[in-house]
Amino acid sequence: MHTFGIADEEFIRGKVPMTKAEIRAMVMVKAAIAPGGAVADIGAGTGSLSVEAALAAGSGKVYAIEKNPEGIGLIRQNAEKFGCGNIEVIEGTAPEAMDSLPVCQVILIGGTGGHLPAILDAADAHLAPGGRVVLTAVTAETTGDIVRAFADRPYALEGFQMQVNRLRKLGRYHLYSPLSPVFIFTAVKETADRS
Amino acid sequence: MHTFGIADEEFIRGKVPMTKAEIRAMVMVKAAIAPGGAVADIGAGTGSLSVEAALAAGSGKVYAIEKNPEGIGLIRQNAEKFGCGNIEVIEGTAPEAMDSLPVCQVILIGGTGGHLPAILDAADAHLAPGGRVVLTAVTAETTGDIVRAFADRPYALEGFQMQVNRLRKLGRYHLYSPLSPVFIFTAVKETADRS
Amino acid sequence: MHTFGIADEEFIRGKVPMTKAEIRAMVMVKAAIAPGGAVADIGAGTGSLSVEAALAAGSGKVYAIEKNPEGIGLIRQNAEKFGCGNIEVIEGTAPEAMDSLPVCQVILIGGTGGHLPAILDAADAHLAPGGRVVLTAVTAETTGDIVRAFADRPYALEGFQMQVNRLRKLGRYHLYSPLSPVFIFTAVKETADRS
Amino acid sequence: MHTFGIADEEFIRGKVPMTKAEIRAMVMVKAAIAPGGAVADIGAGTGSLSVEAALAAGSGKVYAIEKNPEGIGLIRQNAEKFGCGNIEVIEGTAPEAMDSLPVCQVILIGGTGGHLPAILDAADAHLAPGGRVVLTAVTAETTGDIVRAFADRPYALEGFQMQVNRLRKLGRYHLYSPLSPVFIFTAVKETADRS
Repeated sequence: MHTFGIADEEFIRGKVPMTKAEIRAMVMVKAAIAPGGAVADIGAGTGSLSVEAALAAGSGKVYAIEKNPEGIGLIRQNAEKFGCGNIEVIEGTAPEAMDSLPVCQVILIGGTGGHLPAILDAADAHLAPGGRVVLTAVTAETTGDIVRAFADRPYALEGFQMQVNRLRKLGRYHLYSPLSPVFIFTAVKETADRS
Repeated sequence: MHTFGIADEEFIRGKVPMTKAEIRAMVMVKAAIAPGGAVADIGAGTGSLSVEAALAAGSGKVYAIEKNPEGIGLIRQNAEKFGCGNIEVIEGTAPEAMDSLPVCQVILIGGTGGHLPAILDAADAHLAPGGRVVLTAVTAETTGDIVRAFADRPYALEGFQMQVNRLRKLGRYHLYSPLSPVFIFTAVKETADRS
Repeated sequence: MHTFGIADEEFIRGKVPMTKAEIRAMVMVKAAIAPGGAVADIGAGTGSLSVEAALAAGSGKVYAIEKNPEGIGLIRQNAEKFGCGNIEVIEGTAPEAMDSLPVCQVILIGGTGGHLPAILDAADAHLAPGGRVVLTAVTAETTGDIVRAFADRPYALEGFQMQVNRLRKLGRYHLYSPLSPVFIFTAVKETADRS
Repeated sequence: MHTFGIADEEFIRGKVPMTKAEIRAMVMVKAAIAPGGAVADIGAGTGSLSVEAALAAGSGKVYAIEKNPEGIGLIRQNAEKFGCGNIEVIEGTAPEAMDSLPVCQVILIGGTGGHLPAILDAADAHLAPGGRVVLTAVTAETTGDIVRAFADRPYALEGFQMQVNRLRKLGRYHLYSPLSPVFIFTAVKETADRS
């Protein structure tokens, strides 16, 4: 079984911001990726989530969408480092770059660049019934945008804020190293049977 | 793949306190249980962690140690509800009740009833090299006790505090439902090669 | 000097939600109420903030605006209990009920009932140059609404999320009692000199 | 009225760690310093708390105990910058350096250098009945040490963990800048009447 245990420093990352290990693990828990499935990672950044998703997907495939050239390079390097031949990088900006996606079981959404509703429309068009969208929000504005964007969509939405304070040793004591809080939302698409 | 996705309300729990879903998922991530392994759950409570561990362990086995008769009954009920024939309940108090444990790859420690050093000694006696102990602390006192207890032990220790605020809908808005913060420690036992 | 030290249980509160002591204290710190000033408390609830503001304002005055009849009664009871003859209750809904306000040095805004921009317009109309608005947000939606509402206003805005976990004794240990996180924003109105 | 509103960057600080503004304000709220009183600040660091205490104490006096030469210099510089002629620096290490303290109404305790019980004994010897000790803890170990140290002392103890995430603007959005969590304890010394 794969266990989402990759440490932050194992990823090649340059100066691109990266989801921290504890958050990445929780996103993967909520994503509940089954082997063989198709996963899209929108705004893949360094590809750290794509790698974890690819390891979980096994014979399945991960489509990593990223517009930043530095990020695109990092995703490819990390995919190679972790032996993830099942990651396909799609260069471009969501929602346009999502057009070529196949039907996915899971869609991960990091940044949305202000295009959340359009990205959710595109996600819905490529998400299987019962599939799930996992969104992370790291700004004061995005959290409210996400709950409002799902108000009238046929999804079961749950969300929470999570904050981690790592302990680090200093002399005889352990101090706290706070990480930024992140909001994690999981939206499960209703199946036809439920409507 | 198993994905630690069991919701709190799916467990039979009576009035016994239960580790919440997000914490349970994070403990499982840190435990990194491989199929086929032996896992001990010290202070198993309702058995919610034992069940998640048993599902992850597959052909392996989970030893759930619990002294509280109500808890013992709940563990058995939950094991049955989730079809976990690989959970063996050991009635008794740690560290004494740990005597009959086989060599384990993972030992989960919830409450210690004030016997932390002795429980860690017993855990060490039954933990394979490279194995890991995952401890949760929910009191102001226990956090410091744990870091101090590991000061001179041949383990690589990391720990963090994690707090989750769930969002719940109220009318047109979403309010926060705060969960108690929990400290999660992971101690990996050094292999002979490292010493 | 007044020190914002009133405990939660000293207020008469019925079933009306009340800002908790630690948050109330921080709001008062950010409000920086000087003796003699005029303060408005929009959505005064139980009047707990109005009472603290009235004690800080001394010879000044606090205008407590509240629409809920139960709340109005509680504000009056609490004003009497704490000997705050300088609290004037204005029954009604913001922004309309703000029409009769004098020029204020400080305006506290709790709930806005979805009328944030109009309430900020009314607040601005009654706020002295250099005066400050202190807003609390307790929903996932309001935080973003507030930062956006101030984007083009001539105010210096700062804000933070604050979460308190109280410790409570249980047997030999202290457990955490988490309070809901609150966002506190302070907006200082620019004086003519700055523009 | 003094309002604990000094921003972090107004203090001269060098490389000495400093209690952040929101925490400093909350410590002052809990200290409830009355004008004219005597206050001791044990482990005064940069003197930021001493300055706030001195402004609140008015005609009273603040005794800032610090062993670090860099800190001693900073306390003197900050006292001068904020016009606090009522701060007296005591060079030395607690508890020894506390010998010369007069009877105090409030004693602030930051770091204890591992001598907590002895420092609490010294504090008790110099604290007026009804006086209060406010302690801050920033390590995983100290929190438990403090609650245990007060278990048998004739003080009413309350404590909480507080975490602040400041919002900072980045482009069109506001990100979170997390501050380290701090535990704040307030211990009020029982008067003879209560025993």
